[in-house]
Amino acid sequence: MNEVSLSDVENRVRESFARQGFMRLLGAELSLIERGRTEIKFPFSATLTQQHGFVHAAAITAVLDSACGYAALSVAPEGVDVLSTEFKVNLMSPAAGEKFIARAHVKRAGRTLSVCSADAFAVSGGVEKLIATMLATIIRLPIVEGGDNGRATEN
Amino acid sequence: MNEVSLSDVENRVRESFARQGFMRLLGAELSLIERGRTEIKFPFSATLTQQHGFVHAAAITAVLDSACGYAALSVAPEGVDVLSTEFKVNLMSPAAGEKFIARAHVKRAGRTLSVCSADAFAVSGGVEKLIATMLATIIRLPIVEGGDNGRATEN
Amino acid sequence: MNEVSLSDVENRVRESFARQGFMRLLGAELSLIERGRTEIKFPFSATLTQQHGFVHAAAITAVLDSACGYAALSVAPEGVDVLSTEFKVNLMSPAAGEKFIARAHVKRAGRTLSVCSADAFAVSGGVEKLIATMLATIIRLPIVEGGDNGRATEN
Amino acid sequence: MNEVSLSDVENRVRESFARQGFMRLLGAELSLIERGRTEIKFPFSATLTQQHGFVHAAAITAVLDSACGYAALSVAPEGVDVLSTEFKVNLMSPAAGEKFIARAHVKRAGRTLSVCSADAFAVSGGVEKLIATMLATIIRLPIVEGGDNGRATEN
Repeated sequence: MNEVSLSDVENRVRESFARQGFMRLLGAELSLIERGRTEIKFPFSATLTQQHGFVHAAAITAVLDSACGYAALSVAPEGVDVLSTEFKVNLMSPAAGEKFIARAHVKRAGRTLSVCSADAFAVSGGVEKLIATMLATIIRLPIVEGGDNGRATEN
Repeated sequence: MNEVSLSDVENRVRESFARQGFMRLLGAELSLIERGRTEIKFPFSATLTQQHGFVHAAAITAVLDSACGYAALSVAPEGVDVLSTEFKVNLMSPAAGEKFIARAHVKRAGRTLSVCSADAFAVSGGVEKLIATMLATIIRLPIVEGGDNGRATEN
Repeated sequence: MNEVSLSDVENRVRESFARQGFMRLLGAELSLIERGRTEIKFPFSATLTQQHGFVHAAAITAVLDSACGYAALSVAPEGVDVLSTEFKVNLMSPAAGEKFIARAHVKRAGRTLSVCSADAFAVSGGVEKLIATMLATIIRLPIVEGGDNGRATEN
Repeated sequence: MNEVSLSDVENRVRESFARQGFMRLLGAELSLIERGRTEIKFPFSATLTQQHGFVHAAAITAVLDSACGYAALSVAPEGVDVLSTEFKVNLMSPAAGEKFIARAHVKRAGRTLSVCSADAFAVSGGVEKLIATMLATIIRLPIVEGGDNGRATEN
C-alpha cells in the first residue's frame, strides 16, 4: 500500500466529511486537516439543545467521533476506510457557547487499529473552555468496490 | 430523602423525557419504565443516516445515553436530578433495521454515582440484533429551584 | 478455519491460563469455561491489599481482563490467539470479602474484534456483592509458529 | 476549604504513595509531582511478566491509575481524599523495555469529580515509546477521622 500525499489526505477526508449528513445537520465545518490531526467547528443552534438549553451531548459526541475518525483516516494508507469501533466520552461542562470546536489527534496508528484522542471546547467571547474529551479506537477496513464497509460484515 | 412511589417514578421520567428535544427529533418513545430499568424505541428515518445509509452512531449513542440516565433517575430519591458524566460505547454492527430499541438497567445506584448498562438492538422483520452496548456513570445532583443543573457548576 | 470442539476449547483456555504468572500470583482458578462464558475465582490475600486493606483494584481489573480474554478465546476458531486492545472498568464497591469471582461473557464475536462484558463479585459468608464491571474489546491474531503475538507488531 | 501549599501537596501525595503496597511491589517511584501533574516510574522485573515475557497489562494499568489519582489529589482542597470510580485503558504496544513511565495530568478538577488523562511509555536504550493510555474519573471524598473511605459507603 502506497504512502498518501498530503493533498490526497486532505481530499480524501473532505470528500468523506461532505457525505456525512449529520455533520451538515450540525452546520459543522472541517477547519483543519493535517497528518494525524483534525479540527471540526460548529455554531450554536437552538435546534440542538437539550432540556436545559445547552447543546445536546449527542452533538458534541458526534463531532468528537468524526474528528477522531478523520484523524485516523488522515494517516491510513490508500485503499482503506476507517470505522469507530468504540469510544469513551467524559462530559465535563455544559455545552454553552457561541460555537464549539473538536480537536483530535492520533495517539497510535496500528496496522489494524488506531487510537485517537479528542477534546471539545465551547467558545464564548473568544474564550475557549474544555467541555468534553474522547478516547476512541478506530479500525481500518479495505474499501470494497461497489460494496459497503458496514460493521456487521467487516470486523 | 423520601422513597419515590412507582407511579411517581414513571411521571418523573416521562416528564423529563418529554423535554428532550433530541428524543423528539428521533421520534423516540419511552416504551418501558420500571424501577432501575428502561426501554426506548425509535423508527428508522432517512434523515438520521450516515454515509452508508445506516442510522448514525450519534443517534444510537443518544438513545443509549437517555435510557441509562432514566434508569438511574428511576431509582433516585426525591429532589435529585441526574446527569451523565461519562460513557463508553462499543459499536458492534451497523444500525440497519426498521426500528431500534435501547434497553438499560442500573448495575449500581450509589449515593452520588450510579452505574448503568444498556444494549441497543436493530429490529428487522421482528428479529432483534444487538448492534451496540454502553457502560455509563451517572451523577445525582440536587434540583435547584429556578436553577439549572449544569455540569459546569454542579459536579 | 475449523470449528473447535468443546473439549478443545477448554484445553486451549486452560493451557493459556496456566502460563499466566499473574493469575498464579493471585491464586486464581478458572472455575468455569463454556463457549462464550468464563468464571475466575481467587481468595483474599493480605499481599494484594491497597492502603485501606481492600484488595487492590489492579487485581480485580486483571481478573476481569483475563475472564474477558478467555471468553473471547473460547469462541475463536483454531489457529488464532486473542489480545485485549482496550477495556473500561467501573469500580463500584471496595473489594472486601473472603473470595472474589469474575464472570465474563461474549457480547459479540466478530471476525477481528470481540466485545466482552464481565462482572466482579466479592463473596462474604456465602453472599455475593457486585463490586466492579468491565466492558472490553479483544482482537484476534493469527498464532505465529515460534513467534510472539505482541501488540506492537500485530494490530 | 483552604488552598493547599505546593509543599503540602507534595507531602500529601508522597505519604499516600508510600502506603500503596502494590506500588512497592512494582518497585515504583513517584518521580514528579506538580499541581495537576505526576510521573511514576518502575523498572522491568521478570516477576511482573505475562505469558509472552512482557510486563503484565495489570501492572501498567495500576501505575496509570495511581498516576491519575495522585494528579487529582494534587489539586484537591484540604480534608479530602480521592478514589478512582472508573477508567478506560487502551493497550497499544507490548510493555517491553528496561523501565516504564506513567505521566498523568488533570484535564478537569470539579467539585466532586475530576477527569485525568495518563500515558504510559516503555523506555529502551533511552528511547521512550508510548504503550498505553488511560482516561479516568476520580471522585473526591471527605476524609473521615478513624474511618475508611471505601467505595461502598461513600459514593
